[in-house]
Amino acid sequence: MSWETIAEKKRQALKDSIPSQWIIPSDSFPAEDQADVTTFPRESGFFTEHELEITLTNAADILKKVASKEWTAVEVAEAFCKTAAVAQQLTNCLSETLFTRALDQARDLDTYLATHGKTRGPFHGLPISIKDNFNIIGVDSTVGFASLVNDPATYNSTLIDLLLNAGAVLYCKTNVPTAMMIAESVNNVFGRTVNPRNRNLTSGGSSGGESALIAFGGSRIGVGTDIGGSLRIPAACTGIFTIRPSFGRFPNSMTRSGLAGQEAVLSVNGPMATTLDEVILWASTVVSQEPWLTDPKCLPIPWRTVTPKSKYRFGVLYNDGFVTPTPPVLRALNETVNKLKNAGHEVVTWAPTEHKELLQTLSRMFIADGGKSVRKLLEPTGEPFRPEMSMYETAEDKGVYEMWQVQLKRNELCKAYLDRWNAAGIDAILCPVTPYSTVEHGKFAYVGYTGVFNVLDYPAVSFPCGVAADKERDGAYSVEHTPLSDTDAQIRGDYSAESVHGMPVNLQLVGRRLEDENVLAMTDVILKAIASS
Amino acid sequence: MSWETIAEKKRQALKDSIPSQWIIPSDSFPAEDQADVTTFPRESGFFTEHELEITLTNAADILKKVASKEWTAVEVAEAFCKTAAVAQQLTNCLSETLFTRALDQARDLDTYLATHGKTRGPFHGLPISIKDNFNIIGVDSTVGFASLVNDPATYNSTLIDLLLNAGAVLYCKTNVPTAMMIAESVNNVFGRTVNPRNRNLTSGGSSGGESALIAFGGSRIGVGTDIGGSLRIPAACTGIFTIRPSFGRFPNSMTRSGLAGQEAVLSVNGPMATTLDEVILWASTVVSQEPWLTDPKCLPIPWRTVTPKSKYRFGVLYNDGFVTPTPPVLRALNETVNKLKNAGHEVVTWAPTEHKELLQTLSRMFIADGGKSVRKLLEPTGEPFRPEMSMYETAEDKGVYEMWQVQLKRNELCKAYLDRWNAAGIDAILCPVTPYSTVEHGKFAYVGYTGVFNVLDYPAVSFPCGVAADKERDGAYSVEHTPLSDTDAQIRGDYSAESVHGMPVNLQLVGRRLEDENVLAMTDVILKAIASS
Repeated sequence: MSWETIAEKKRQALKDSIPSQWIIPSDSFPAEDQADVTTFPRESGFFTEHELEITLTNAADILKKVASKEWTAVEVAEAFCKTAAVAQQLTNCLSETLFTRALDQARDLDTYLATHGKTRGPFHGLPISIKDNFNIIGVDSTVGFASLVNDPATYNSTLIDLLLNAGAVLYCKTNVPTAMMIAESVNNVFGRTVNPRNRNLTSGGSSGGESALIAFGGSRIGVGTDIGGSLRIPAACTGIFTIRPSFGRFPNSMTRSGLAGQEAVLSVNGPMATTLDEVILWASTVVSQEPWLTDPKCLPIPWRTVTPKSKYRFGVLYNDGFVTPTPPVLRALNETVNKLKNAGHEVVTWAPTEHKELLQTLSRMFIADGGKSVRKLLEPTGEPFRPEMSMYETAEDKGVYEMWQVQLKRNELCKAYLDRWNAAGIDAILCPVTPYSTVEHGKFAYVGYTGVFNVLDYPAVSFPCGVAADKERDGAYSVEHTPLSDTDAQIRGDYSAESVHGMPVNLQLVGRRLEDENVLAMTDVILKAIASS
Repeated sequence: MSWETIAEKKRQALKDSIPSQWIIPSDSFPAEDQADVTTFPRESGFFTEHELEITLTNAADILKKVASKEWTAVEVAEAFCKTAAVAQQLTNCLSETLFTRALDQARDLDTYLATHGKTRGPFHGLPISIKDNFNIIGVDSTVGFASLVNDPATYNSTLIDLLLNAGAVLYCKTNVPTAMMIAESVNNVFGRTVNPRNRNLTSGGSSGGESALIAFGGSRIGVGTDIGGSLRIPAACTGIFTIRPSFGRFPNSMTRSGLAGQEAVLSVNGPMATTLDEVILWASTVVSQEPWLTDPKCLPIPWRTVTPKSKYRFGVLYNDGFVTPTPPVLRALNETVNKLKNAGHEVVTWAPTEHKELLQTLSRMFIADGGKSVRKLLEPTGEPFRPEMSMYETAEDKGVYEMWQVQLKRNELCKAYLDRWNAAGIDAILCPVTPYSTVEHGKFAYVGYTGVFNVLDYPAVSFPCGVAADKERDGAYSVEHTPLSDTDAQIRGDYSAESVHGMPVNLQLVGRRLEDENVLAMTDVILKAIASS
């Protein structure tokens, strides 16, 4: 079978998996040119008040209501399955639906609670959406390759076992770009996921199916992964929260990767949600399950309580010396800095000294196998390289010795960065997540603001800072500037104040390695400073 | 200059660095055929009673006596410098002497204590010996290569900074094999280190300069490294204690490696000492200095207190399926198991299911660069590959893609091992460190019993179990057996009950990854079981 036929059948099967009662009637289906579809659940009349109430309730309260039997796990699962089904029809955010097994699982949980008088675990009855690359027995993890269609997993990822044991209800898997190595979520099997806030714009990638689903309201907490920005970028494109944790906090083993066996820079997984509290809830709950007992790479570090300081010292990276953020991001960063100063925090400028070299090592690591891993996944079906992945198509395997030199260099850079951090005495770095609020499809051109922190393995939160792109107000930041690089020139050339008008802007807060709790606590402090200004 | 000339000059410089008053007079110099030289300090009359008292005092008491001004740091440093100088003359265990700077440092510490009324830090005045590969500003780290002679370090290793800040006195560096990749300590620059308990036998490697120095009595605590057994093997060969910690507990950055940039299996450093308490003292003190604040790869896991259980469940690996331990080790293991049972512990057999494949991945990792790193260090001076390193001479760089497959396989094996551990419900694995008590020079042929735990990154203690090789009693274990492999046949063929008679036998206790504190606590429980039986 050609890759086109495989892909077409897979898309059809996905479409057919949505029960007819959750298919949007043609008379209320939004017009193709309706940009913002996040209004659909509330305004279409397709959802009951109770369904809306459920999906608008935060995860902690859902858990309480299910545990107290105010709601059944089944009614909660139904509300999220239905909303996810609708999100899929409007944004193409899913790769798999697991509705039947989710409802079976919910029914079992309700029975368990009725029988035993206690919950199954700390996620009892909470629907959690899962990025495509996590293995769930019996379900495909194609990561966008036609060759991986109809190759259902024979084992669960460690995280999936943990979530199931904790009582989470798994109801869908979400779309990704090919090999999860593009910053937008597009592949030759499922096509493109669009941003529910503005369907002309990207929801980012590679966890862009998750971000679209969550921003639409079809999930309270979803799990994505990040090796160069794949959690933080989609969170930024849709204005939601996430943390790229340090490696080893959350279990990541037995998952599918587009670059299997690559370890020079390590992929991590993390939660995405519309509130910081839900991110923290997921993180603390997962760690409370002691994942290091079953995941050989997890670290036995319990989730630690952080008492926030009254005054922090933030290093602000305004520009990484290679790509200048677009005007909405520049304004958001400046306004946020002012709010932090007003709230009594100290703000110093943080230089991008090692950033260029860190990014060079990151690029070398991704293509160190000469693109062979990706090629081997394309070849069986004759699937072509996507144009976004030309770097992999033309790469060369320069051998292990050369790779050791790259790793040596990376270690030097990590040491220099840490020394500089210590010398500056900062608590965290505040910086852009991407040069964009978000951007039109096919134009996402730079992951440098996130990628450096993957190499450093620093925890980094991507959070909406309360500023939205505004074609009037951003004008002041749209000054002529000498391009710092070709990419810089391209990005500024592509920038359209009109296109992104109204899109939320995320910023990135970066902490010391393995101080994930602390960077989340500092984000909360920043949100309070923003709220009170 | 030829490598021979460089080496000769370096050896001469090392010899010349020993002050004349510490040169053993020719009339009391032990005969070349005197095997055991550990008796020299007590019996030669070359040392004062006070010098002997100092070097025979454990580290904790030395710290107390210096802090209370009962002893000066200078007199302590002098005693250890002198003993190390003598150890060098009898076992060739050093690569650098740092006597002058050590005495200067000690003088400064005494002044500091007198002036400030407090110690400089938790190691105030304690002499600590250091394996050659740690960088100390102004001192060579040749790791046995002629090309690295006269290339003094321009920076300190992170651990060296930590030790100096903590008040430790650094007084010598100890010999290693070429590239630290041979299980005996022999190289073309400094030659061979011999075992002070029996100079016809090896002190092991690669931290075999350390083990010889410590077993001789020239150091209370020394620091070695381990990537395949390099701490545990020399500890076993000389009957002292060490822990191969999990990666990330002790700072390891900015050190010299023979395989620089190799990270598929990670080198770690750890303490070696004649008592378990001194191993624990070093470990807990180093971690108390929060090394993660300055070493980018260290983990922020404080040193945790472990309350021992009254009953443990030990999995005993009697044979790894590839090489059968020699009779003294078989007897030591059996006798220790009986003592543990007598003390009320549970003992089950642990199978070597994944060991063969774990070792195959380890070998692949070491030579993944096609031996290029080693070759590049030999070439500048025309130094030949040592015969023990033929594996590196003939290796091929098969490229990064193949390496990724090896890493994938390793991850599968690590997961399988952990699953099996959980299913068996064991607390620790008790097994041989090596097939030998120790062995004649040039005959050390197998590192499989240690290497597997490097791949798994499990903490492993090498400890003397109280049994010594005994040509009479070991006879019962010297039965015919069908060789499991060519290596097995070779090792059994080489075994000489006569040669190793009297040598102490170490065993290995292995704990869960990053539970370093726990494996040390369990070792203490085993020592008590041994002592009480």
